[in-house]
Amino acid sequence: MKTFEDINQVIKDEMANINWNKKPQGLYDPIAYVLKMGGKRIRPALTLMACNMYSENVQNAVQSAIGLEVFHNFTLLHDDIMDRADVRRGQPTVHKKWDDNTAILSGDAMQIAAYQFIAKTPIENLKRTLDLFSQTALEICEGQQYDVEFENRMKVESDEYLEMIRLKTAVLLGAALQIGAWIGGATDKDAQLLYDFGINIGLAFQLKDDLLDVYGDEATFGKKIGGDILCNKKTYLLIHALEIAKGDNSKELQKWLSISDEKLSNNKIQSVTALFNKLGVKQICEDKMQYFYNMAIAKLDKVSVSEHKKQELRKIAEKLMFRLD
Amino acid sequence: MKTFEDINQVIKDEMANINWNKKPQGLYDPIAYVLKMGGKRIRPALTLMACNMYSENVQNAVQSAIGLEVFHNFTLLHDDIMDRADVRRGQPTVHKKWDDNTAILSGDAMQIAAYQFIAKTPIENLKRTLDLFSQTALEICEGQQYDVEFENRMKVESDEYLEMIRLKTAVLLGAALQIGAWIGGATDKDAQLLYDFGINIGLAFQLKDDLLDVYGDEATFGKKIGGDILCNKKTYLLIHALEIAKGDNSKELQKWLSISDEKLSNNKIQSVTALFNKLGVKQICEDKMQYFYNMAIAKLDKVSVSEHKKQELRKIAEKLMFRLD
Repeated sequence: MKTFEDINQVIKDEMANINWNKKPQGLYDPIAYVLKMGGKRIRPALTLMACNMYSENVQNAVQSAIGLEVFHNFTLLHDDIMDRADVRRGQPTVHKKWDDNTAILSGDAMQIAAYQFIAKTPIENLKRTLDLFSQTALEICEGQQYDVEFENRMKVESDEYLEMIRLKTAVLLGAALQIGAWIGGATDKDAQLLYDFGINIGLAFQLKDDLLDVYGDEATFGKKIGGDILCNKKTYLLIHALEIAKGDNSKELQKWLSISDEKLSNNKIQSVTALFNKLGVKQICEDKMQYFYNMAIAKLDKVSVSEHKKQELRKIAEKLMFRLD
Repeated sequence: MKTFEDINQVIKDEMANINWNKKPQGLYDPIAYVLKMGGKRIRPALTLMACNMYSENVQNAVQSAIGLEVFHNFTLLHDDIMDRADVRRGQPTVHKKWDDNTAILSGDAMQIAAYQFIAKTPIENLKRTLDLFSQTALEICEGQQYDVEFENRMKVESDEYLEMIRLKTAVLLGAALQIGAWIGGATDKDAQLLYDFGINIGLAFQLKDDLLDVYGDEATFGKKIGGDILCNKKTYLLIHALEIAKGDNSKELQKWLSISDEKLSNNKIQSVTALFNKLGVKQICEDKMQYFYNMAIAKLDKVSVSEHKKQELRKIAEKLMFRLD
């Protein structure tokens, strides 16, 4: 069994070997730039770990794994244009460093490049891997579209929110695991259990992210605390706060939602956090997170390999509950 | 043998059957809108015609054919954002009717949808079709990048221009034919000859397009005459004019290139056209177009099927020399 560190090294080596030094440079340089920014490479790691539960030969899955990572980074590139985000991982985003058109076109090329890696999946698994990859990629677009639409909607139900984060975040973790399992030689049943494990871990993680934005430690979190509060992002916390708040609490929450004055930023963060505490939505979010985490572990428990082979995935599930990029 | 009209009907029927009425509508409506705008469906027609040279069962190739058409329309969608084009086929472009973000995201989804159709290629031809499709898609991105870069460059060589139009336009025609031939059961040699036929027809067509922009009939051409002249587009005509013009001719050409005053639009078109005539670049362009057309026909001649089976492709080659969308 390979450790998470071993597997990360395999991915790092393989990604360093990709030649993006192609012409026209104006198309390929931004791709190399985005992929050099780093990130935890969680998705390809999940693919290789799932493969490794059934096979010692993780090299069989490495091209598909990289396809998923290239696709993930493509979504970040295009999302950053749509969100007008200037910085990613401490560096200027592609549309800031170059321009919007470059970011659009290089992103398009990156999506094709992702498919080129997926096409290197061993032939006996190519068709179903390709189909799951396309389905997942479309779902991610759907999730992004819902995310954008929710920003402009007055009311979002908590189930709608969970469906949005399932699409935007969880399905790629599920697909990464299922594809790795297939390539390793898992039964359809095990591959499905690992997909479900990924979905539930993804949902738990995203709720953790909502919590960290409010209650996290800035240094560990890596982002400014309260960012979601400042932009009125309809997180699981805010959705429940809006549902629960009555009378004065409701009035105060609505008041802060209508304030976008930068001078009042700290006040807004503190006051909304205080309201969240008063309304008990932190606990609601933590409970739901724990529910999904437990679901994930229950799925993993049912996978028909020895406990020893599940260890690394259990460890990463715990890690994921802290941070994921 | 099916006629071009038969084949167009097959494509039309199949495209009308695609269900884009999916949620979220904000993601799928723009895709349906773009595909309903129409167009001549030349690329999928080439796929089915090439298939039909070897097999009566063109249904085997229809999903792959639609994948190429969906991809082509995706490139138009994203190109229109980059070019800030407000109108396409007489209707507002997606980023005008909706907004830039919608156009980016729906385009991304459309590219994935194209791959979903390609994935329906009969399994024995899936891998090589997928690989040729991805290679072609990347080449089209490269062509678009060169096109953008040439706008900001003082000097473009005619060979660079030909390579750009090969990438941006010709390779998709070649791939459409080669994929259809493969699915129909052609030998590798025939499939390659048909690819080469497509490349040469594509190059000839693009030079025809350059000529029509200056010397065409507005009603038939479907666009305003002189558009390329007004935006100083480095077409095959302008590239050669810049190379040939000396003394006063050069000064006059440079003068008009520096003028962007809308009130002088008609003067600019007339004067630059007069210079093109004086410098003989129309003839140079027509000769090159004829060269590629002859090359295309020479490739088709070598294809090892009976003359009868080449008839429809010969006809479309002639048609293509007039208009293509």
